[in-house]
Amino acid sequence: MDLKQVAKDTAKTIVSYLTYQAVRTVVAQLRETNPPLSIWLNGFSSTGKIQDGEAYLQELLDTNQQLAFRVMTVRAHLAEEISDFLPEMIRTGIQQANVEHRRQYLERVTQLSSLEPLSIAEPPVDSEPESDDLDESI
Amino acid sequence: MDLKQVAKDTAKTIVSYLTYQAVRTVVAQLRETNPPLSIWLNGFSSTGKIQDGEAYLQELLDTNQQLAFRVMTVRAHLAEEISDFLPEMIRTGIQQANVEHRRQYLERVTQLSSLEPLSIAEPPVDSEPESDDLDESI
Repeated sequence: MDLKQVAKDTAKTIVSYLTYQAVRTVVAQLRETNPPLSIWLNGFSSTGKIQDGEAYLQELLDTNQQLAFRVMTVRAHLAEEISDFLPEMIRTGIQQANVEHRRQYLERVTQLSSLEPLSIAEPPVDSEPESDDLDESI
Repeated sequence: MDLKQVAKDTAKTIVSYLTYQAVRTVVAQLRETNPPLSIWLNGFSSTGKIQDGEAYLQELLDTNQQLAFRVMTVRAHLAEEISDFLPEMIRTGIQQANVEHRRQYLERVTQLSSLEPLSIAEPPVDSEPESDDLDESI
């Protein structure tokens, strides 16, 4: 597991995601001040190319430099404001989600076993593989 | 701009991304120890549903509980190891990319203006809007 590469790829993904959030912010701001431009930016940005934030900005720079600079400023602002909260939110988010998945899984297994008590002691030969796995893991 | 909501959505996106990275890690590990299972997990995971990490894990839990638990463990590990590095990487990543975009843009503008020196002093009336914008911003 190349942790350094994972960290690098994750940071890149977040930068692209914050670019997307910056575009959403600018579209919302323009809705108040310049509705036609808001509609234009929304259309320009909804073609999937925003998946790669840098390629998207490159293209926006070639089309409307002012808007591109504005998106760049907003994403830098977003990064400043939220970055420090992310490590705790990520760790807690994963821990809580993992606990919840395990809890739900155990609940389902317990329900299954109380519904079919015999299958634990004596699994039917022609049962599906999935239910075999469940029985074994109890 | 709802910074709290942006932070929440960003954390959720990262958790899904780390789930994807955890699956990649487990697929690579299984390639050594259990190639058929590696191929199966790869196939199970490449249908776009990994975009939502929690829905993906729910489905994997229903199909192969052991693998789902393993992915959950690996993503928690990844989060522990890399989270603290992300704020700095995100901020620096955005700053550097913004500087680079501005530099490249100014370079292109300078090249254009040295190629067409007259258009700065006297923009043609029927020129395209894009070149008007360029001239104004110099």
